[in-house]
Amino acid sequence: MAEAFDALVERLKGLPGLGRRSAERVALQLVTDERGASAALREALERAERELEACPHCGNLSQRGEACVVCTDPTRERRALCVVERIPDLRAFENSGSWRGLYHVLGGKLSPLQDRGPESIRLASLGERMAALEVEELVLALSNDVEGEATCHYIAENFLPAGREVRVSRIGFGLPSAGEIPYADAVTLRSALESRRAFE
Amino acid sequence: MAEAFDALVERLKGLPGLGRRSAERVALQLVTDERGASAALREALERAERELEACPHCGNLSQRGEACVVCTDPTRERRALCVVERIPDLRAFENSGSWRGLYHVLGGKLSPLQDRGPESIRLASLGERMAALEVEELVLALSNDVEGEATCHYIAENFLPAGREVRVSRIGFGLPSAGEIPYADAVTLRSALESRRAFE
Repeated sequence: MAEAFDALVERLKGLPGLGRRSAERVALQLVTDERGASAALREALERAERELEACPHCGNLSQRGEACVVCTDPTRERRALCVVERIPDLRAFENSGSWRGLYHVLGGKLSPLQDRGPESIRLASLGERMAALEVEELVLALSNDVEGEATCHYIAENFLPAGREVRVSRIGFGLPSAGEIPYADAVTLRSALESRRAFE
Repeated sequence: MAEAFDALVERLKGLPGLGRRSAERVALQLVTDERGASAALREALERAERELEACPHCGNLSQRGEACVVCTDPTRERRALCVVERIPDLRAFENSGSWRGLYHVLGGKLSPLQDRGPESIRLASLGERMAALEVEELVLALSNDVEGEATCHYIAENFLPAGREVRVSRIGFGLPSAGEIPYADAVTLRSALESRRAFE
């Protein structure tokens, strides 16, 4: 077509749900829209880049300089913490309405094979929050794979407060092996929470 | 979540193939990507807005100030013109490899009910090109609805050169390849019967 068009398709391709064909359709729509869809999208992106950042407490997406909507919600149970890998996982739990505690977004999982150690994810702040919030319940909502397992073990071994009881559980039933949390439906996620089991 | 995030989702929602859920996934991916996917997409959009415009001849997407890749292709049959409504239609024909002539993108169809008259689409330039290119074959590749029908008639009545023969045809309508009769709609089946051909 034209180089600038191909470059745009390259940028769209690979976004969730967008293969080459669908990226081309989206690009065409954007560049031929007469009401300025392209410029409007650019402005929305620029604003999001400027205004959003990770919540300083939990790592959720948040208005820059402010705690996120979950952390500032006075109705949330503050002694219950659900540890997730990424923000889409948190959003999926929120959409399912099945968790009333707070979250902690790790930003990744431990992976010795890929050289991602404890300092590569938000583990230090997890320890600090556990103490500051006097957390009584910790739910490990990490995926059902080797890295998820390793990360759960690492947390259970290193971040439980000494001399204070914390119920630690891991989600289990409901989430299919190799399934991804953002794509699970609300019922599946609720089952996963309800059927959590003690993690030793 | 946050206002800037919701605003971004609004801009993505409604693009081809993107409902609310998928728009949210794309938005999250963009705002949380650490390699700058959001800024890269903004730049690609800005470049596309700056560099692309409608081909001055046929209306296809083109490098600003230049004729498009079809119009500048010396191997194309220049006396055969295929009239389409929009650029994606042109692209579909190009991807199918089934047309070796040039195109003319109308940018819409005539619709008296919605007050879209002849001056709202690229009809004047169609007449000029028919003369300049000395077109001998005109294929009307407009959709099988009232507006498509009306636009075809309007072109046939007003834009054929006097004193020179032009073969005018309209693309065939019927059962799509791999289409199954029980699932075809009534209009499709009626068209399929109307356009039946002798079978030898």
